[in-house]
Amino acid sequence: MKELQPLHEYVLLELVEMEAKTSGGIIIPDTAKEKPQYGKVVALGNIEKPSVAIGDFVYFKKYSGSEVENGGKSLLFVPYADLLAKIVETDKI
Amino acid sequence: MKELQPLHEYVLLELVEMEAKTSGGIIIPDTAKEKPQYGKVVALGNIEKPSVAIGDFVYFKKYSGSEVENGGKSLLFVPYADLLAKIVETDKI
Amino acid sequence: MKELQPLHEYVLLELVEMEAKTSGGIIIPDTAKEKPQYGKVVALGNIEKPSVAIGDFVYFKKYSGSEVENGGKSLLFVPYADLLAKIVETDKI
Amino acid sequence: MKELQPLHEYVLLELVEMEAKTSGGIIIPDTAKEKPQYGKVVALGNIEKPSVAIGDFVYFKKYSGSEVENGGKSLLFVPYADLLAKIVETDKI
Amino acid sequence: MKELQPLHEYVLLELVEMEAKTSGGIIIPDTAKEKPQYGKVVALGNIEKPSVAIGDFVYFKKYSGSEVENGGKSLLFVPYADLLAKIVETDKI
Amino acid sequence: MKELQPLHEYVLLELVEMEAKTSGGIIIPDTAKEKPQYGKVVALGNIEKPSVAIGDFVYFKKYSGSEVENGGKSLLFVPYADLLAKIVETDKI
Amino acid sequence: MKELQPLHEYVLLELVEMEAKTSGGIIIPDTAKEKPQYGKVVALGNIEKPSVAIGDFVYFKKYSGSEVENGGKSLLFVPYADLLAKIVETDKI
Repeated sequence: MKELQPLHEYVLLELVEMEAKTSGGIIIPDTAKEKPQYGKVVALGNIEKPSVAIGDFVYFKKYSGSEVENGGKSLLFVPYADLLAKIVETDKI
Repeated sequence: MKELQPLHEYVLLELVEMEAKTSGGIIIPDTAKEKPQYGKVVALGNIEKPSVAIGDFVYFKKYSGSEVENGGKSLLFVPYADLLAKIVETDKI
Repeated sequence: MKELQPLHEYVLLELVEMEAKTSGGIIIPDTAKEKPQYGKVVALGNIEKPSVAIGDFVYFKKYSGSEVENGGKSLLFVPYADLLAKIVETDKI
Repeated sequence: MKELQPLHEYVLLELVEMEAKTSGGIIIPDTAKEKPQYGKVVALGNIEKPSVAIGDFVYFKKYSGSEVENGGKSLLFVPYADLLAKIVETDKI
Repeated sequence: MKELQPLHEYVLLELVEMEAKTSGGIIIPDTAKEKPQYGKVVALGNIEKPSVAIGDFVYFKKYSGSEVENGGKSLLFVPYADLLAKIVETDKI
Repeated sequence: MKELQPLHEYVLLELVEMEAKTSGGIIIPDTAKEKPQYGKVVALGNIEKPSVAIGDFVYFKKYSGSEVENGGKSLLFVPYADLLAKIVETDKI
Repeated sequence: MKELQPLHEYVLLELVEMEAKTSGGIIIPDTAKEKPQYGKVVALGNIEKPSVAIGDFVYFKKYSGSEVENGGKSLLFVPYADLLAKIVETDKI
């Protein structure tokens, strides 16, 4: 099978509707309706000691990234430096 | 529980109405009505020897930051370099 | 025969209609109708340890590159740093 | 008591009407009516070997700084690099 | 006789109509009618280990360069970094 | 007495009408009527091995500098890097 | 006598009508009618191992430089980096 391998410090994200996928105590944004500012990491470029991994949900800078579409999926190449935060599991209640 | 972990040198701030939360000798700004220029530090990214800690109230550069909203709370990812000052306790009278 | 040898860190791409050339499990973009954001690597400039090779299919940043045309072929000189991703064969199913 | 502690290389200035506060041989500017280009240093950020101290009167680059107001006082966070000059005592007559 | 010796990393190019001068298997662009993006290297400035030599035909970035005219000839000072490619002889058929 | 001590690499200039002050073989500009591009060095900031001294007449880049006025005198804070030339005494005839 | 000593990496040029001053095999531009792009080096600033000397005729980048006029002469302070080429004597025929 063929896949997209990001180059340089690009991260490939799948733009997802987070509301439908998260549960429990997660912080769910209710703004940013049209173009979401978050997505799921699909592939990583050549990044030294990345702080994100494939499968992570991340926020990224608005208007960042180069979009490609594949069927119904929206994919986005975002420079690693434009990622703002990832969602992590914590022991807090 | 899930939380937002800022990446790179981003700081996650909660935008608060300072007037309602401070007391005593604190300097209370009475301008900047719509979009406040200050907030409370909620989380810190990967910052070497940060001068601010979680819970600090900070001023930041106007128009800086990427906003996300969660219920009634306004959260903002601000580059650490755009923080202007923090409010500290002193022995002065 | 004479050929174009890219200088500096430029990559020479041939702009191709990927839909007609790929098969199997490849991710086929169906947007970006007029000016495709992908092409085939035809020649490489002076790039240290390049992550792409001649023949690779690559995505590149929109609006990047200096175009030249040759007969029916569209060729583009793209800075290596503006390449976003290459298409690779994987063992995944 | 609580105070504003500038971060990074910011300097906190109190914008003052110099004409009312200076005397003797001091150079008194008579332009720049609306928004003065000078003020008194109130607090210093993390500046290595600063050339100004708290209490100094300084000139700074026009349009520089992030303003906050506190009652009647106008405070300004100015990058240290945007300070132009300080007023010093000399032995000259 | 007197000549133009480029300074710094400038390359002096003579703008030529390639169609009239090439033959055989050479790639001949048929676009870029008004202002060609290619020329012949006439002189080199102070460039360490240049990848082009006097006499080479080169492509350069559109709108780059400072033009001077001499009789019928159009000469152009182009920064070395703005050269895109040179035309080389290969053994390919 | 109090004086203006420039900070960083700023130079404090007094804007003078050179025509009235020079004599002999000096090059006297007759353009730049409104805002002169030259002045006399009044004070120097923290400049390592400066090529100008207090009292030197200097040319500086047009539109450079932050102006303050003091009575009839026009003073200007100009970055040292924006000085173009100084007027020197030579043995030439 | 007094002279202009350029500071930093500025070069002082005298703007000349080359057509009237050159002869023999020299390349004479016939464009750039209003504001010539070439001149004669009159003085050099603080440039390490300069490739031009006083008396050299040089081309420089259009729109570069800060002009001063002196009687009939047009003088220009041009950054050394904006010089494009100098005219040199060669043994070629």
